[in-house]
Amino acid sequence: MEATDLKPGQNLAHLLPPSWRSDIQKWYAEDTPSFDWAGFVVGEEEQEAILWGKSGGVLAGVPFFDEVFKQVDCSVEWLMPEGSVVPDNSKTKVAVVRGKARQLLLGERVALNTLARCSGIASVSRRFRDAARAEGWKGTIAGTRKTTPGFRLVEKYGMMVGGVDPHRHDLSSMVMLKDNHIWATGSITSAVQTVRRVAGFSLLVNVECQNVQEADEAIAAGANIVMLDNFAESDLHSAAKQLKDKWRGKREFLVETSGGIVEGSFKGRLGPEWDNICPQTWSDLGVVLERLWTNDGSPFSIYFCSLDVDILSTSAVHQSCPHVDFSLKIQPKKA
Amino acid sequence: MEATDLKPGQNLAHLLPPSWRSDIQKWYAEDTPSFDWAGFVVGEEEQEAILWGKSGGVLAGVPFFDEVFKQVDCSVEWLMPEGSVVPDNSKTKVAVVRGKARQLLLGERVALNTLARCSGIASVSRRFRDAARAEGWKGTIAGTRKTTPGFRLVEKYGMMVGGVDPHRHDLSSMVMLKDNHIWATGSITSAVQTVRRVAGFSLLVNVECQNVQEADEAIAAGANIVMLDNFAESDLHSAAKQLKDKWRGKREFLVETSGGIVEGSFKGRLGPEWDNICPQTWSDLGVVLERLWTNDGSPFSIYFCSLDVDILSTSAVHQSCPHVDFSLKIQPKKA
Amino acid sequence: MEATDLKPGQNLAHLLPPSWRSDIQKWYAEDTPSFDWAGFVVGEEEQEAILWGKSGGVLAGVPFFDEVFKQVDCSVEWLMPEGSVVPDNSKTKVAVVRGKARQLLLGERVALNTLARCSGIASVSRRFRDAARAEGWKGTIAGTRKTTPGFRLVEKYGMMVGGVDPHRHDLSSMVMLKDNHIWATGSITSAVQTVRRVAGFSLLVNVECQNVQEADEAIAAGANIVMLDNFAESDLHSAAKQLKDKWRGKREFLVETSGGIVEGSFKGRLGPEWDNICPQTWSDLGVVLERLWTNDGSPFSIYFCSLDVDILSTSAVHQSCPHVDFSLKIQPKKA
Amino acid sequence: MEATDLKPGQNLAHLLPPSWRSDIQKWYAEDTPSFDWAGFVVGEEEQEAILWGKSGGVLAGVPFFDEVFKQVDCSVEWLMPEGSVVPDNSKTKVAVVRGKARQLLLGERVALNTLARCSGIASVSRRFRDAARAEGWKGTIAGTRKTTPGFRLVEKYGMMVGGVDPHRHDLSSMVMLKDNHIWATGSITSAVQTVRRVAGFSLLVNVECQNVQEADEAIAAGANIVMLDNFAESDLHSAAKQLKDKWRGKREFLVETSGGIVEGSFKGRLGPEWDNICPQTWSDLGVVLERLWTNDGSPFSIYFCSLDVDILSTSAVHQSCPHVDFSLKIQPKKA
Amino acid sequence: MEATDLKPGQNLAHLLPPSWRSDIQKWYAEDTPSFDWAGFVVGEEEQEAILWGKSGGVLAGVPFFDEVFKQVDCSVEWLMPEGSVVPDNSKTKVAVVRGKARQLLLGERVALNTLARCSGIASVSRRFRDAARAEGWKGTIAGTRKTTPGFRLVEKYGMMVGGVDPHRHDLSSMVMLKDNHIWATGSITSAVQTVRRVAGFSLLVNVECQNVQEADEAIAAGANIVMLDNFAESDLHSAAKQLKDKWRGKREFLVETSGGIVEGSFKGRLGPEWDNICPQTWSDLGVVLERLWTNDGSPFSIYFCSLDVDILSTSAVHQSCPHVDFSLKIQPKKA
Amino acid sequence: MEATDLKPGQNLAHLLPPSWRSDIQKWYAEDTPSFDWAGFVVGEEEQEAILWGKSGGVLAGVPFFDEVFKQVDCSVEWLMPEGSVVPDNSKTKVAVVRGKARQLLLGERVALNTLARCSGIASVSRRFRDAARAEGWKGTIAGTRKTTPGFRLVEKYGMMVGGVDPHRHDLSSMVMLKDNHIWATGSITSAVQTVRRVAGFSLLVNVECQNVQEADEAIAAGANIVMLDNFAESDLHSAAKQLKDKWRGKREFLVETSGGIVEGSFKGRLGPEWDNICPQTWSDLGVVLERLWTNDGSPFSIYFCSLDVDILSTSAVHQSCPHVDFSLKIQPKKA
Repeated sequence: MEATDLKPGQNLAHLLPPSWRSDIQKWYAEDTPSFDWAGFVVGEEEQEAILWGKSGGVLAGVPFFDEVFKQVDCSVEWLMPEGSVVPDNSKTKVAVVRGKARQLLLGERVALNTLARCSGIASVSRRFRDAARAEGWKGTIAGTRKTTPGFRLVEKYGMMVGGVDPHRHDLSSMVMLKDNHIWATGSITSAVQTVRRVAGFSLLVNVECQNVQEADEAIAAGANIVMLDNFAESDLHSAAKQLKDKWRGKREFLVETSGGIVEGSFKGRLGPEWDNICPQTWSDLGVVLERLWTNDGSPFSIYFCSLDVDILSTSAVHQSCPHVDFSLKIQPKKA
Repeated sequence: MEATDLKPGQNLAHLLPPSWRSDIQKWYAEDTPSFDWAGFVVGEEEQEAILWGKSGGVLAGVPFFDEVFKQVDCSVEWLMPEGSVVPDNSKTKVAVVRGKARQLLLGERVALNTLARCSGIASVSRRFRDAARAEGWKGTIAGTRKTTPGFRLVEKYGMMVGGVDPHRHDLSSMVMLKDNHIWATGSITSAVQTVRRVAGFSLLVNVECQNVQEADEAIAAGANIVMLDNFAESDLHSAAKQLKDKWRGKREFLVETSGGIVEGSFKGRLGPEWDNICPQTWSDLGVVLERLWTNDGSPFSIYFCSLDVDILSTSAVHQSCPHVDFSLKIQPKKA
Repeated sequence: MEATDLKPGQNLAHLLPPSWRSDIQKWYAEDTPSFDWAGFVVGEEEQEAILWGKSGGVLAGVPFFDEVFKQVDCSVEWLMPEGSVVPDNSKTKVAVVRGKARQLLLGERVALNTLARCSGIASVSRRFRDAARAEGWKGTIAGTRKTTPGFRLVEKYGMMVGGVDPHRHDLSSMVMLKDNHIWATGSITSAVQTVRRVAGFSLLVNVECQNVQEADEAIAAGANIVMLDNFAESDLHSAAKQLKDKWRGKREFLVETSGGIVEGSFKGRLGPEWDNICPQTWSDLGVVLERLWTNDGSPFSIYFCSLDVDILSTSAVHQSCPHVDFSLKIQPKKA
Repeated sequence: MEATDLKPGQNLAHLLPPSWRSDIQKWYAEDTPSFDWAGFVVGEEEQEAILWGKSGGVLAGVPFFDEVFKQVDCSVEWLMPEGSVVPDNSKTKVAVVRGKARQLLLGERVALNTLARCSGIASVSRRFRDAARAEGWKGTIAGTRKTTPGFRLVEKYGMMVGGVDPHRHDLSSMVMLKDNHIWATGSITSAVQTVRRVAGFSLLVNVECQNVQEADEAIAAGANIVMLDNFAESDLHSAAKQLKDKWRGKREFLVETSGGIVEGSFKGRLGPEWDNICPQTWSDLGVVLERLWTNDGSPFSIYFCSLDVDILSTSAVHQSCPHVDFSLKIQPKKA
Repeated sequence: MEATDLKPGQNLAHLLPPSWRSDIQKWYAEDTPSFDWAGFVVGEEEQEAILWGKSGGVLAGVPFFDEVFKQVDCSVEWLMPEGSVVPDNSKTKVAVVRGKARQLLLGERVALNTLARCSGIASVSRRFRDAARAEGWKGTIAGTRKTTPGFRLVEKYGMMVGGVDPHRHDLSSMVMLKDNHIWATGSITSAVQTVRRVAGFSLLVNVECQNVQEADEAIAAGANIVMLDNFAESDLHSAAKQLKDKWRGKREFLVETSGGIVEGSFKGRLGPEWDNICPQTWSDLGVVLERLWTNDGSPFSIYFCSLDVDILSTSAVHQSCPHVDFSLKIQPKKA
Repeated sequence: MEATDLKPGQNLAHLLPPSWRSDIQKWYAEDTPSFDWAGFVVGEEEQEAILWGKSGGVLAGVPFFDEVFKQVDCSVEWLMPEGSVVPDNSKTKVAVVRGKARQLLLGERVALNTLARCSGIASVSRRFRDAARAEGWKGTIAGTRKTTPGFRLVEKYGMMVGGVDPHRHDLSSMVMLKDNHIWATGSITSAVQTVRRVAGFSLLVNVECQNVQEADEAIAAGANIVMLDNFAESDLHSAAKQLKDKWRGKREFLVETSGGIVEGSFKGRLGPEWDNICPQTWSDLGVVLERLWTNDGSPFSIYFCSLDVDILSTSAVHQSCPHVDFSLKIQPKKA
């Protein structure tokens, strides 16, 4: 969901549990393991710092940024809500941070590193989501578990700000059965039944399938999602349709696809609102995406945009995303 | 330094302290907070998994990958040393991991996420380093503190595998004085003296300067490094030379520059050995870099490649780097 | 699932993630915050200790017991598999633990406290499961989140050994919407849609409903489970049937009920195999259960054993369960 | 001591050290390892929730409940002091909790799980204490170390609210010498002397004895407490008397007994004030206790109620205790 | 107790709980927060290092030293047992440490810092103990809680190696009531009774008294120890005697004294064995002690060496003790 | 730097990072692992306690003392600034601490243990610094890494309050190459080059040298500091001069010396201001130092006071320092 979708009182920060704050203590310990030499120089005069947006993108990571500064007794006043688009190549005032000089500088790098990465993910996520919507596809674009170790909460949060489904958070919160699990138990049916016995009713079971027959067996065995992995485009279309037709009214399930996205792109289909905000970075990214997705310059055919495919999961919305560039500058009280 | 530079017995893994291993416990807790449902399905049969290199790049992160698997009682046999170039678009066997099926799958995602990011940084770092060497520049390319919170050790390690200087690790291990510190104390001289009193002799002091006069004052006050920040190209050249000439034989110092790299590129100057290994990803990156560095298509002038500039520090070698793609596949004992 | 259901190679211990072991360090720190005075007295002679089962029940907690002793360099040889029934009022050898005398004594209390509680939960869980099966009901009996803080993994594990569904592990792994969530958003439909936007497709949504109309709205809005809470018996039956009939072939969902179990009991329907193993404790428990469930001595009517009710969730299978009594005795090598 | 015994200004919460609060962070992390999906739905409107007492018992765990909510910025107003008896089968307002809706729901389960278990222990503890007092016995009823790993502080606290002695907290705070220690050193005398050398004067030494001769040797060697373990009733009486008589005026020591409580009960001797508050649960428990303590229906003889026995330690006051049932309900501001 | 007192199989290392090892991880993290630069230089060749004793003293801290090196995969072979006297001004081989070069150097400083401090405490402790024994006094010399925060386990361990009583380890393991507690409750009697109610029978109660009347009241109220604090010498003698006489055969208690040790010393009374081992450091210490204890050069009168004083507690045995100097030198395999 | 050197707004507390506060939680857990029995007795009446200085020295550790009490909700008002000299043998009011009675007592020992040790180090450090200045020597006196494990931050802080250089904080923040590193790489030149490759430009490299030739090689190879270790006095003088002369105007480097300080002392050269403040302890220390430094009573020659020696590093300024004695006394509100 995008920020503009939020109703009054709704706030993605409300998703955050009480416990993540101790991670921030570790980030501080990483950045200042013993003494803060420069902090002695700058002292504790109360100052005001401006958070400037320098490259364009979607602002994300607000509650993390807030907490980083809260832990050093600084406060943040935001001039635009989370999910807003920061225009590119402009110097935009995004927030004001207030506190003691040395505390502002202690928090600066930890806070910016978090915001830059979270916003980068939100930006690419929203771009993908908008491109899909522009194509008329209504399905779900979802992320993966290919996140930076120890930093997943921030990265999944960025996906949500960008309007992308975060997919399962961890191995404990959804079951995915792959070829190894099937070998180990002898069949898809056996694998699904084995996990149901322990995991019970409260978790979804997702089975990675190589062909229609496997998917059919998985659905019959009780899978909630079938992942059609690395299908050729035409096969994917027909497989998804065949499964949906066969089981309609009998079983409910979702069709997911992932990986091997080689024959399509969203290029050129984004609305003009994108042109203004990121003329440079985005178009570069566009080139990369184009090359990545079209090997031969053939016309685009968004093969996954079948009505029978429910979910496209891809690490492209969060892995190796360009960060969004922010800086924090103290305004000297008397200069 | 690059892997090929390593003498017998030298190994970057020897840089790692005893304490980082507990971070890996946290990465595991993040990825499996409670039960491992699929692990129950797959069981504990001994298996062998192949680590495949899928996209080209520099292999980095070996000791982290080793430790991730060691913590679940698996062992890793590497088929190529850290620092090797994994060819692109080929399916290369990089290592063999042996252990119980469920343990291999538990470690898989944590290990791959680490290796992919570390190798991505090493790849971009080496590319920058090689490009600079191809230009004939002998100075130091260095990273920054703009790393992922909680993951800095891995990212700085990747820079070193790629042959790039990791720059200061944290606020405690080198002093950098910026405009705020100077305002607070009244002058560069005062700021340098203030920090020397407490930090003493055992840390380098680096002063960010806006012009030659400031740099001159900093050197006189005892700075070890002057950072000429956001200088126009011609100014940078002359400033560095002027300072070096003035202080030669009187004081030893280094000239660092950073940021605003807009008028140069390494494009087209890399040796042909790069052509083979990463035809797609690297050339895409090349496009990005070109656009990033040349706004107007003017001919390249590597303005920082002055003999008087000692260090170019840039987050471009580690922030937002494309990851290197690896996968881990169990070879079923009897399929 | 019960232990006797396990196929070769299957083991509930395979559900455990790598990270829980550090909890055991904390348990040790709790039990010996500074010096182990008696350990000095007893020394480090290698000894063998017998784990005796003293009161009847289902053995559960084996991997925790193993790990507690492993952390003090002792090893455990089990004489019966996890899930076995330990007979009551007999002195049964359950396992042999080997190690240094003081280490055996250090581990003793921590290990027994864990095993006693985990086995107690498994025992009551299995009793409930068997009673339901004896009634001919095929639905799922599930636990709740009413566990001891910090000890949930052990308690949920005990439920699984006892054959009971552990239900959702935590707030992050399944969404339950209750009256407060509905008030806050204005309607069931709105609440379900709101959470779907962020949680996406990968989590089940369970909605607590006060009547058929609410349940109907929840299903229409996309709920995966409707929890019919505190329904009178006849209402429950007809409500479940009505919902199942209406939505058959249109939507898939589960009906859960919980709480207010006052008019039924499994008494007298357990097979004779229970008579032998726990003549005292179990029959006492039987009295408690009987009183708990029948206020007026009326004949039993297992009201939830409707074919249209899929899940009965109850904290009775794990909260306040009688523990199973074990003791650990060192066999002196020469007495 | 019971709550009614507390003098003005006295409060059992004053027993709690500064460090236990970090345990509560772990409890929260257990209950919400990543996102709080339902929290997003309910938002942060300020609300008021009532803590209802549903089953009868002694209220205990107030400072833990307070801290759980404090950590999510909610406040608690208690309508009855800790140690009060919550009447059974009535719906009693026990406290009001105020805070943001999602924070109230985050704290709800963690706080209730703690309060329910702590109060359950306090209830059984007080029942035992009152029964002993009703019998006219003045000795100490004490708990044991058979607590839930990681949760001992709460459970021992519950014992104290119930008026029962918590006994030694851990292996470091009192020395208990058992058969193994005596074997290892050759004699009771040697075992006591060995531990005195290191533990010195500041800890009590408690020796488990099998007969009068052993107890006599232990006292002579300097034991502070002799534990007469598993003595037959008549033996216990005469042994305790014999020891007290022999050493009167020469050495000071306490006689403790534990375990094998099979021939007595407090049933029927409690005052009528108990009849009102827990007609159902308590009488059921009474049945359990009766069966547990009288194998043959013989008349009660509270064998440990000898004037020469100082301490009866039993895990029955805290292990497997029925919990006290509480619920927390938000009062919607406008329904 | 001293090392020479240890019987076969007895070892003070057996006092250590399982949990302290994680402290050593923190010590390593303190000493190498990020990279170990020199470790890269020295590599992982297997080497052997000698632990040299350089200044005289009592060797203590062996299990800590062992564990520090074990955590970096090195092993230690001791050439003399813990508690041995290392001669002064000689270069004594104390142990051999084997492992990889960089691991030996990583452990070096952490291990030596621990051993030097622990041995320093053991040395002063033993000197005090021997001096008291030389005086013919049989009472207990005990330490205090005035230890280095976070390092108490090591320091109390050193006291035990030196033969001194470690006194209570923490606030939880013995109750000491001082003036504040007495003011708060109104009287000594009330303070003792108040704490007995909660702490019960399993902890000793020690009451700090200003005069005989207070001590008498404390004993009557049930105190186990009376601390006669800052008494003048003659007062102390007569007070202790008076109390012992009065309560003989009625109550058992210990008399402790502490602080204000100004009028006595052990100087000149130590046996000649001390002369050899620490000609320099020890005699210097002697001077310090002499000055500390005799203000006016008056003849020694060890005022606390009354038969009626049981315990002298003093931080002098562990606070500000001179460390014992050790060094660790790698023997190059081929030099 | 000394406290009197601090300019307005400068405060050594500004050196402290955000993360050290969690150490204090561990100190509290060490001192009160479970219940605070005496805290129950004393209760939570608001009280005021005086921090008394009892033995003379330099007050240091103020921010640690503040934080210890802040964590138990007490506040501290200082009556003299950090770095002030507390007179000896006087009872000086140093600060007032306000809070609840039991909280004051909980913090008392943890806070005093920290302050006493930190002030002890500051006192000896300043004494050394002043003695050197009195001799006319302008070089740097620096500490070492020979600190108490886990307590280094406090101890290095004490050095800075005393005006002594803390030297490198850990293995990660400066490189020191010793004989082992040189053996391992074959030569000083090779060792320096090896470490430069990875550590890059941002860390100083310090090489321990046995003679002038080695030092010369180290400087040529790029070392920033040469440590002339265990040189005889005359050799040190000439070596330092020879190196400075040779490299003047060519390379910048510092000469450090350490260890084996046997032939000099500052005795008798301190100004009269020291006489007043610590007549007893300091003069005793003087005796110790004198004996330590002069074996033969020869006249003092402060051999390191060469103008060519830049740094004298010694653990004598922080290891085994006499602590400064403070006490904390609650002033009863109505006595």
